[in-house]
Amino acid sequence: MMEGEPIVFFNGALLPEKEVGISIRDRGFLYGDAVFDATRTFGGQTFKLKAHIDRLYNSLRYLRIDPGVTKQEMERWSLEVVRHNYPLLPAQQDLWVMQRISRGVESAEPGFTPSPTVLIETHAIPFARRAALYRDGIRLVTPSTPRIPPRFLSPRAKTHNYLNLIMGELEAQAVDPDAWSVLLDENGNLTEGRGSNIFLVKDGQVSTPSGQFVLEGITRGTVLELAAGLGMPASERDLDLYDAYTADEAFLTSTSLCICPVSAVNGAAIGDGSVPGPITQQLMAAFSDLAGSDYVAQYLYHLPQDG
Amino acid sequence: MMEGEPIVFFNGALLPEKEVGISIRDRGFLYGDAVFDATRTFGGQTFKLKAHIDRLYNSLRYLRIDPGVTKQEMERWSLEVVRHNYPLLPAQQDLWVMQRISRGVESAEPGFTPSPTVLIETHAIPFARRAALYRDGIRLVTPSTPRIPPRFLSPRAKTHNYLNLIMGELEAQAVDPDAWSVLLDENGNLTEGRGSNIFLVKDGQVSTPSGQFVLEGITRGTVLELAAGLGMPASERDLDLYDAYTADEAFLTSTSLCICPVSAVNGAAIGDGSVPGPITQQLMAAFSDLAGSDYVAQYLYHLPQDG
Amino acid sequence: MMEGEPIVFFNGALLPEKEVGISIRDRGFLYGDAVFDATRTFGGQTFKLKAHIDRLYNSLRYLRIDPGVTKQEMERWSLEVVRHNYPLLPAQQDLWVMQRISRGVESAEPGFTPSPTVLIETHAIPFARRAALYRDGIRLVTPSTPRIPPRFLSPRAKTHNYLNLIMGELEAQAVDPDAWSVLLDENGNLTEGRGSNIFLVKDGQVSTPSGQFVLEGITRGTVLELAAGLGMPASERDLDLYDAYTADEAFLTSTSLCICPVSAVNGAAIGDGSVPGPITQQLMAAFSDLAGSDYVAQYLYHLPQDG
Amino acid sequence: MMEGEPIVFFNGALLPEKEVGISIRDRGFLYGDAVFDATRTFGGQTFKLKAHIDRLYNSLRYLRIDPGVTKQEMERWSLEVVRHNYPLLPAQQDLWVMQRISRGVESAEPGFTPSPTVLIETHAIPFARRAALYRDGIRLVTPSTPRIPPRFLSPRAKTHNYLNLIMGELEAQAVDPDAWSVLLDENGNLTEGRGSNIFLVKDGQVSTPSGQFVLEGITRGTVLELAAGLGMPASERDLDLYDAYTADEAFLTSTSLCICPVSAVNGAAIGDGSVPGPITQQLMAAFSDLAGSDYVAQYLYHLPQDG
Amino acid sequence: MMEGEPIVFFNGALLPEKEVGISIRDRGFLYGDAVFDATRTFGGQTFKLKAHIDRLYNSLRYLRIDPGVTKQEMERWSLEVVRHNYPLLPAQQDLWVMQRISRGVESAEPGFTPSPTVLIETHAIPFARRAALYRDGIRLVTPSTPRIPPRFLSPRAKTHNYLNLIMGELEAQAVDPDAWSVLLDENGNLTEGRGSNIFLVKDGQVSTPSGQFVLEGITRGTVLELAAGLGMPASERDLDLYDAYTADEAFLTSTSLCICPVSAVNGAAIGDGSVPGPITQQLMAAFSDLAGSDYVAQYLYHLPQDG
Amino acid sequence: MMEGEPIVFFNGALLPEKEVGISIRDRGFLYGDAVFDATRTFGGQTFKLKAHIDRLYNSLRYLRIDPGVTKQEMERWSLEVVRHNYPLLPAQQDLWVMQRISRGVESAEPGFTPSPTVLIETHAIPFARRAALYRDGIRLVTPSTPRIPPRFLSPRAKTHNYLNLIMGELEAQAVDPDAWSVLLDENGNLTEGRGSNIFLVKDGQVSTPSGQFVLEGITRGTVLELAAGLGMPASERDLDLYDAYTADEAFLTSTSLCICPVSAVNGAAIGDGSVPGPITQQLMAAFSDLAGSDYVAQYLYHLPQDG
Repeated sequence: MMEGEPIVFFNGALLPEKEVGISIRDRGFLYGDAVFDATRTFGGQTFKLKAHIDRLYNSLRYLRIDPGVTKQEMERWSLEVVRHNYPLLPAQQDLWVMQRISRGVESAEPGFTPSPTVLIETHAIPFARRAALYRDGIRLVTPSTPRIPPRFLSPRAKTHNYLNLIMGELEAQAVDPDAWSVLLDENGNLTEGRGSNIFLVKDGQVSTPSGQFVLEGITRGTVLELAAGLGMPASERDLDLYDAYTADEAFLTSTSLCICPVSAVNGAAIGDGSVPGPITQQLMAAFSDLAGSDYVAQYLYHLPQDG
Repeated sequence: MMEGEPIVFFNGALLPEKEVGISIRDRGFLYGDAVFDATRTFGGQTFKLKAHIDRLYNSLRYLRIDPGVTKQEMERWSLEVVRHNYPLLPAQQDLWVMQRISRGVESAEPGFTPSPTVLIETHAIPFARRAALYRDGIRLVTPSTPRIPPRFLSPRAKTHNYLNLIMGELEAQAVDPDAWSVLLDENGNLTEGRGSNIFLVKDGQVSTPSGQFVLEGITRGTVLELAAGLGMPASERDLDLYDAYTADEAFLTSTSLCICPVSAVNGAAIGDGSVPGPITQQLMAAFSDLAGSDYVAQYLYHLPQDG
Repeated sequence: MMEGEPIVFFNGALLPEKEVGISIRDRGFLYGDAVFDATRTFGGQTFKLKAHIDRLYNSLRYLRIDPGVTKQEMERWSLEVVRHNYPLLPAQQDLWVMQRISRGVESAEPGFTPSPTVLIETHAIPFARRAALYRDGIRLVTPSTPRIPPRFLSPRAKTHNYLNLIMGELEAQAVDPDAWSVLLDENGNLTEGRGSNIFLVKDGQVSTPSGQFVLEGITRGTVLELAAGLGMPASERDLDLYDAYTADEAFLTSTSLCICPVSAVNGAAIGDGSVPGPITQQLMAAFSDLAGSDYVAQYLYHLPQDG
Repeated sequence: MMEGEPIVFFNGALLPEKEVGISIRDRGFLYGDAVFDATRTFGGQTFKLKAHIDRLYNSLRYLRIDPGVTKQEMERWSLEVVRHNYPLLPAQQDLWVMQRISRGVESAEPGFTPSPTVLIETHAIPFARRAALYRDGIRLVTPSTPRIPPRFLSPRAKTHNYLNLIMGELEAQAVDPDAWSVLLDENGNLTEGRGSNIFLVKDGQVSTPSGQFVLEGITRGTVLELAAGLGMPASERDLDLYDAYTADEAFLTSTSLCICPVSAVNGAAIGDGSVPGPITQQLMAAFSDLAGSDYVAQYLYHLPQDG
Repeated sequence: MMEGEPIVFFNGALLPEKEVGISIRDRGFLYGDAVFDATRTFGGQTFKLKAHIDRLYNSLRYLRIDPGVTKQEMERWSLEVVRHNYPLLPAQQDLWVMQRISRGVESAEPGFTPSPTVLIETHAIPFARRAALYRDGIRLVTPSTPRIPPRFLSPRAKTHNYLNLIMGELEAQAVDPDAWSVLLDENGNLTEGRGSNIFLVKDGQVSTPSGQFVLEGITRGTVLELAAGLGMPASERDLDLYDAYTADEAFLTSTSLCICPVSAVNGAAIGDGSVPGPITQQLMAAFSDLAGSDYVAQYLYHLPQDG
Repeated sequence: MMEGEPIVFFNGALLPEKEVGISIRDRGFLYGDAVFDATRTFGGQTFKLKAHIDRLYNSLRYLRIDPGVTKQEMERWSLEVVRHNYPLLPAQQDLWVMQRISRGVESAEPGFTPSPTVLIETHAIPFARRAALYRDGIRLVTPSTPRIPPRFLSPRAKTHNYLNLIMGELEAQAVDPDAWSVLLDENGNLTEGRGSNIFLVKDGQVSTPSGQFVLEGITRGTVLELAAGLGMPASERDLDLYDAYTADEAFLTSTSLCICPVSAVNGAAIGDGSVPGPITQQLMAAFSDLAGSDYVAQYLYHLPQDG
């Protein structure tokens, strides 16, 4: 059944993706009152799925949503959906697999308690749109909109409330449409972009913003471990624009990007502007080894032929 | 057609509500990347619909979403939906009519630009669930989660990112399930609840928090005008817990609540704890006059008979 | 002399407690312009008295009060008061012994310099009132009133200015009279309650807020040492509500509580809500060993028989 | 009875002052958990006593203390105490009359609720110590310790927690023993000193810090009214060190000071450094008229003969 | 003498500009420890010179520099320099005339007190570089670097410390070289650019940021007066990016710009993007009337012929 | 050539100091738009010149100034200037050697890009003025003006914008002309003085404020290394007035001071007020060893004979 077309897990069942819609009264839609997590595949194999699901359940706990599904079930259904959908992809592609749980559908009935909406879906990573970044580096911009601090809504919970990050991105891209944004916090420290963490390298030291102020990316954690394994001093600490402008190298990490070099911050070249720098290069290679896939080659494969 | 069942306006057409679902890739669902506004009816007539639509278009402008629909069309379609759905209600009921516009469906295609999702829907106001508030007053709690300040995401835009307000509400209601919450701002000033504005009365002065830090409710504006008409000094200014604890009267306003008295803040009785106070009473009566409907009677009609 | 009734040390002499009153012009009363410290006894023996007195003299130094009494004298008189008062207690009771020094009595005379008021007193620890906490756990609430940050008045000095902590406690207990409060700081991090420190346990890590933002409890320090001795990773760091809601275990410490488990924060159960968790349990046992007294049994002894 | 010696009102009775002491377990002493207010006499007549008592009851309400005494009783007993104590003063003296209410005596008994301690006392205003200020002006210093903002503890409640103001005063007077201090707030705006409000005059405009951030002095309110009566533009607004350093005139107000000119701020002369400036002079004269007493003459009478 | 070449006033004398240099030990150079002000001419006549000199002396007072020159002398020498230098200009040009006073030359000598350096100079306004702005409007960018708040260094004093504004400008212009920058403050409110004030127009209301957070431009004050004269509601208030994105019109003011329309903020068109809007247009015309010179025509005269 | 008179390096050439002036249009003068660094000599030998030049180039990078001179050239010219100027000094003297680079001279020409002004100069360290500090200790004052936080302008870049530090110094010295100032940050933590870093010693621990909030002095780094070498625990951390008032010892460091003891903070004696404390003494001796010069003896040599 459902051969040849992608499926999703939706409230207990596997269904063709095209048949599933979210209720117009679902709190995930009305308020962004939902959490999610996103794992990627390398050659169809999920990478660190358990760690992603652990983080998902922390997000649920923060929002006081009981998904009614165990971690083990969540993992099993996720693998099921990947197993079905991955073969439908063209060659050299890979998937994001996402679990999304909202608090459920709202009702005006007295005493009504919503029951959670649970969705597991996959979709293709945009390799083509990003391929040039691995050749040229990312041009980062820090918009004037700062990142919401933890006391208002913790960035450590991965929720459906993304407008703060989107406002920052719109601001940066209105001036430079290819720029990526990383928001500063209220103290002027670098935080994160929409779905990405930032690292700076200076005098051989690898640094990334502290975990309280960002979503602690699984890839971010992997990089800290890889650096340790390579004998590089690496730490979490406050990093501001002085650090960015005087850095030797910089890169972003995310589940889908893995590690991608940054060439400039606010128009100021990082180092001499060429990418990747030597430390970044080492970490990228180590990441490919760990993932068992030359992810950079995969991205560059999708470069437009004469772009 | 579609007689006997509620309809919605969805992306250009009137459709039965039950046939409409939101795409699992709609940015309104994924990120809360959407805006809305909500008008209510009194006896089936919309109240200040134009003002609500003006505010909606400011929200759109803030998020840089072009809805592809003029204000006039938005108003016309809203009235159309109300005209169809209102007669389906039981007696003594009224409607919320809501316009919701998201940035549209996301895609990984290079160069893809989403086109907005436009939804107009109605649903019944929960009179029964709230009726006792007009008899007993609202017990307010200020949770420890403060309201997101404007520099991160302006509260003046009515978006689908409600988690900050929801986190505050969950915190308050986990201790007192019937409490309503009003969040403080980072300076300890009162801001707003989920969809409501607060007013305090002290020595005959009517005050409400400044417009930069809250969604400027249409009802809030109406109350300021009514107070002026009644010769009461009324103003927007910073109000903190000292003001709340020493106030003579307090009330909340919202599109559906109109004006509803508050009996206690954080367990401290307002005045002598009886509601409504004399100034609140005057404003409530004036509001009913303006709306052409005794909204308090309508709420009390829904009181459980022996609750 | 003075047999059968408790004594205090007051401005150089041992006196019956009932004969001592504070001047209505004492700055300790007028302004809370005074410092104190509080040691407890286990079976009549003071615990870490020297450490408490060291902290007391730091508080004095911060307030620029010279007590006119050496640390050695302060210790000696404290022991003297305990020696006299402890035998007056019923069985299974223990004492707080408190040193209090105010800047002295105020006068309008030109050139007048006040001389400090020095008081050492003891009183019974409220075992009965707290006994159920060791069985059921503490329900914590974070009130909307945040803790005064160090730049205004350092929480590291233990002074007679407790209103900020009291306002937070009143706010929490007005909604749940049995709740204990822990105030957040201006960044949304957990600080302390009235006389207590908080610890969270997550994935085997024991954490407590940084020492700059709280009174560094002697018991808090003891727990950090006990954890180290038990091979548990333990550290001071910023902890916010995300940490609290996703914690596996939580507990409060104080001189009189020693270690007492927390069952819920803002109505959200910690772990599965049962207390104490395994790490907390280990630390409690280790504390009893160190104190040479099963303090939990002592508390539970005072449980109402059929409450 | 009690002729020839001062009396106080204490917990329901008039008693000789010397017989009254505060319990060592009174929360006013232990925590500064108490409020007060202070009126002064002019020639033995209280000035604006009702306004002071109204403010006292707002302070009580903020701290959730029910004094068990009506405003009318509080006023009557205050006048009684003054009536008895004023005649005991030397000539050219006047009194402060203070009402102080603490939450009461603490006890470890389960279920114990403290009952408030109520004290009304008078004492002499230190004319001699301050007389030179009316001739030379006050040298103001803004210490590095900022004023506690309202969200932590409202300055509008006049409580027994004065350490923040005292720490600022100690800091200023350690460098210049005759300096008075006015604390800045966290935004660098002037707030208040220990018991005093500040005014600046620039280009004929009279300004004082906003009421949310200071104790709104009765004298401060009187000055705003006097200025209005004299046709001077006068307002509450944020005032910072730029305003202070570029002001034409400055003065402090308090119940006992009335209006006293300031000659320098942080060592920078106000205007040309001579006092009082013309606007201050006008307001001082108007205040004496209103109080029915040349208060400046009274202060100067106490100047040391050859000091 | 000195005919045909520009002169300056330097430490008491009129000298050829080319003969004057600043000491390498001048504190104006070493630390930016200096103040200045800048008036412009219209057809060789200075505009509001006295108001500029008043502001200059407030800046001096804030920095505690006594220039050793009266306001009258400063004005007289300024006019002298203009009288000499203006005729040297080409047609259709005008001048800035600037007074600059530093604290003087530094020395290591014990007891040395520097004496101020006083400079009055003129130079041509860059009409050609700016002419296109009056045709196309200014593209504004709010950089991520916020404006230094008053408590650290008051923006109301016009000093030689411009790096905060320059860092913001460099950040904005690195992405769009023709952009002008207006910095936000720490609360996300608009402040000012390097030497310019911003105004927004919404629903006929003219607004500009409050005077405490910006240099209160003389032109800014003039616009507030002109608006009042034209019956437009105009006020100082907090304006944030929500206000900017939803504004109908926007413009910058400065001594040399007078009033210049803004076409976009962070890439979002103001109104429909065409300039000037009707209210801006009215104010521009009124300004030309007041200055006695069609300053827009003067700017447009310098438009490149075929650029 | 130029024998007997000091020279400077100026824009590519060695010139007599007296012939060099800064253009009145140089951005270093107009805006403080320039950076510098300062090394000192011991017996005519520069100390850690390379480290200073590295820091200088980080400052340049932060300000986006390309000096057009390599680090190696900067070092060579600096040594050249010292080699010429040192012999001109009296005995027991030493030099500061300073590199200063501004963005260059401003012009109104369209398309004009300024080219940097590069200056290397030396001048005598004020030994006589400071000698008594090594005997009596420095009296520190924390002014009410706080240090500009990094998000507005990073203190890690050593620029010509010193007004914030100067305003703090003026405020402190207006009350005590011999006081040195150390500014607090917005959180009440100690930062730095004009050109100096602060250290506290408590219970054998050596601490200094974190590097993000201060100019990371080369001497500060040297002290941290010396402490490590002497087996003293030493770290960077937040230090506030509680730490200062309860410290056992305190000292300032700077390039020219090396290590100089502090005797009091805000009038409160450090320890018992005698200087230097034992740990400070050890570090001072170690520093002299490292520098190869008894710098304390050099300072004390310049003590006035009978002052």
